[in-house]
Amino acid sequence: MDPASFRRHGHALVDWIAEYLEHSEKYPVLARVKPGEIAAALPSQAPEEGESFDAIMADFERVLVPGLTHWNHPGFLAYFAITGSAPGVLAEFLSAALNQQAMLWRTSPAATELEAVTLGWLRRLIGLPDAFEGVIYDTASIASLHALAAAREASIADVRARGLAGRADVPRLRVYSSDQVNSSIDKAVMTIGLGHDSLRKIPVDAEYRMRADLLRDAIAEDRAAGVLPIAVVATVGTTSTTSVDPVPAIVDICQRERLWLHVDAAYAGVAAMLPSHAHILAGADRADSLVVNPHKWLFTPFDLSAFYCRRMDVVRAAFSLTPDYLRTSEAGHVKNLMDTGVQLGRRFRALKLWMILRSFGARAIREHLSAHIRLAQELAGWVDAHPDFERMAPVPFSVVCFRWKPAGVSLSEEALDAANEHLIDLVNQTGEVFLSHTRLRGRIALRIAIGHLETTERHVRRAWDLLLEHAPSVRSVRL
Amino acid sequence: MDPASFRRHGHALVDWIAEYLEHSEKYPVLARVKPGEIAAALPSQAPEEGESFDAIMADFERVLVPGLTHWNHPGFLAYFAITGSAPGVLAEFLSAALNQQAMLWRTSPAATELEAVTLGWLRRLIGLPDAFEGVIYDTASIASLHALAAAREASIADVRARGLAGRADVPRLRVYSSDQVNSSIDKAVMTIGLGHDSLRKIPVDAEYRMRADLLRDAIAEDRAAGVLPIAVVATVGTTSTTSVDPVPAIVDICQRERLWLHVDAAYAGVAAMLPSHAHILAGADRADSLVVNPHKWLFTPFDLSAFYCRRMDVVRAAFSLTPDYLRTSEAGHVKNLMDTGVQLGRRFRALKLWMILRSFGARAIREHLSAHIRLAQELAGWVDAHPDFERMAPVPFSVVCFRWKPAGVSLSEEALDAANEHLIDLVNQTGEVFLSHTRLRGRIALRIAIGHLETTERHVRRAWDLLLEHAPSVRSVRL
Repeated sequence: MDPASFRRHGHALVDWIAEYLEHSEKYPVLARVKPGEIAAALPSQAPEEGESFDAIMADFERVLVPGLTHWNHPGFLAYFAITGSAPGVLAEFLSAALNQQAMLWRTSPAATELEAVTLGWLRRLIGLPDAFEGVIYDTASIASLHALAAAREASIADVRARGLAGRADVPRLRVYSSDQVNSSIDKAVMTIGLGHDSLRKIPVDAEYRMRADLLRDAIAEDRAAGVLPIAVVATVGTTSTTSVDPVPAIVDICQRERLWLHVDAAYAGVAAMLPSHAHILAGADRADSLVVNPHKWLFTPFDLSAFYCRRMDVVRAAFSLTPDYLRTSEAGHVKNLMDTGVQLGRRFRALKLWMILRSFGARAIREHLSAHIRLAQELAGWVDAHPDFERMAPVPFSVVCFRWKPAGVSLSEEALDAANEHLIDLVNQTGEVFLSHTRLRGRIALRIAIGHLETTERHVRRAWDLLLEHAPSVRSVRL
Repeated sequence: MDPASFRRHGHALVDWIAEYLEHSEKYPVLARVKPGEIAAALPSQAPEEGESFDAIMADFERVLVPGLTHWNHPGFLAYFAITGSAPGVLAEFLSAALNQQAMLWRTSPAATELEAVTLGWLRRLIGLPDAFEGVIYDTASIASLHALAAAREASIADVRARGLAGRADVPRLRVYSSDQVNSSIDKAVMTIGLGHDSLRKIPVDAEYRMRADLLRDAIAEDRAAGVLPIAVVATVGTTSTTSVDPVPAIVDICQRERLWLHVDAAYAGVAAMLPSHAHILAGADRADSLVVNPHKWLFTPFDLSAFYCRRMDVVRAAFSLTPDYLRTSEAGHVKNLMDTGVQLGRRFRALKLWMILRSFGARAIREHLSAHIRLAQELAGWVDAHPDFERMAPVPFSVVCFRWKPAGVSLSEEALDAANEHLIDLVNQTGEVFLSHTRLRGRIALRIAIGHLETTERHVRRAWDLLLEHAPSVRSVRL
């Protein structure tokens, strides 16, 4: 593509994206295609001759757009709702053009140092001490994997060299979390060779928070049985109900027991920048590591996960390795990002975080977060006031879990589950909003998450009205 | 940022990027900043109030641009030279705006199915059989980690549940590669709990290719010692010299010994689309897995690594795990990308590969690859013809390893190493080109890699002329 064509197509794309971001509501939130439909509409071989960008964009609109689920639609209220904000989108465009690969300081001093600077900004905003060094990974899955690999490194002699297999000196290992922990932690223990059974899930209290007393008991029981505890994962903002584990009590236990404490604050960590929510990271200043995802609730296009660690030397001990072809004269004086992890290659992700934090400013970010929390409280109020709905968990942040449970009618729990699943499907089929679900104490809960910058009371109200509107048909179908 | 501002800043950014891509040669390739200079030029706290995008871009130009090493400069001849091509840059812009998170089919049918389609295109272009299923990861480091985790899953009973520690039924484990293997394999065995010692590096022949006979001997020796071999990593295009391991002989051994064969073709795999180089993947059709990186030599902005596997069911057995909040009614009928790996979140990376393959077309891609290989051959010819330079490895693709070794002068190997390191520094300081180095049989080699679309004979000639120009000063300084 010659420079003139790049300009022409680039300008056209700016207009397309501007239109998209402004009018994403014209699309159904949840894609309506059937499985296989998109693949079937595309040729099975690459073209031999190049095609015009106009033709490619035409196919994009014709074939791919109907297969998009619109995460940038303000009616997206499923999972953790996110926003690819305008400054972040522009930064990703620039980052793609610069094509920095920041494995070594010298291969991108700007990306390497801006990563430290922006992570410092975020760290101060959420009130973590400066003793936490930061590094950017793609996802919280990878960040937490590094945390647990560091815990393994800190607990087992020579594990980097000798591994875990065929060693009489390494007993069974244990990692603890609540039973509400995100599946990334299950995957991390499986990946690093501890095995899924090594993750002991501690029961929660009535508000879905880890029971610190049961954690203490479990550790004692494991030690007595010859199992070696190595780490605890506490969650600040669990995936189902956004509950906050009692980190101050947990960190006391971890310090006494000399266990690595990793705090998964992937979703809720950013809320600590609100005076009303600063307490959520109480105790986390004494944790060993913490992950918070700007691509969740900080308006950053996916992907950017911020990992903070008070013992980054342990992460480096576990992972740093410099082959001859990557030795540089400045090593020792600079931070080489490749030393802090599995991935050699590092994108210039800090650029978008920098542009977002500057473009919004801290005050506006706090206002957006507060607005989302207020909207969730409002929805919780409507749920609580309605006789046919039942709230299923507290609402500490911007997620509400509840279910339809009609007053004055006796339904089995199984029937309620089926009815609520059906209700979600009916509402999602409208295309106006997209909700998801979870299971709480075995029962299906509707789950509404507010996180898009353009989501207003109108969208939350519409979701609520759609639930009210469709509830009668669920009742008649299912009874 | 309101829609009108997005348009205004977007259009300005298109012009900035167009100018940058067209005139990247006006910058020194290798950044000239000193360590800490960029961080020192930026405030230590995020601004409280939002700032204009113009102000942010002004700081980008003033503070960050001097800290960029220009991977998109045609004089970038270090490591593996790459290109963030124009259609790929536009696709990343679009992808950021769409902000798809394709963990589940339903959260982005378009990203999920386009990934399968484009990986099918690439698979056919490089001549891999359809039995290989593809998945996109961020980096080859992560792709190879999944390959070795799958090998572990296939070899050790209940490893997903029970892990490796504290098990009397799991002996010491072994993975084999040549001594030229990329460091990502070292990191993978460390990460998944096998330990660095589990990687046995087989010596290479005179052309830096794994000695299959020594591999066979090593496996026999390990088995006799009670060590359990689980996988072999063969490399097609090693990092130092782009050598090609004898995959047909290695795959025979793997099949006889029932070992997982992973082929690391991260850099060179795309060359298999040339009739002249199709043989490089001979035998790989019988491998268990293979990685090839479009972000290396297929003009794709970083990051996009394509992982192909004939036994993706094993990868899924090792990693799939569906928490309640991610269960969907279509599961079982669709592919959910989260099932094939550690990372729950998946970016819409396929979009750029699709746009690049369509925009270039297969014929133009083959022509670009051939041109790079021709340029490398030309440089190799100049080296071979010059009495003061010595070529240090064959040139099967687009990388040339050589060193300055003046005729008629007797220098110790240590003096030659020092002189060549100094020569690289002098040439890199010119800012016109950027070369890197490696070590071959203990000796420093200059390493010139050609991979940028705009790199022409002029740039390679300039690198050569700069070497000739600076060699005398190295001689006088060092003798």
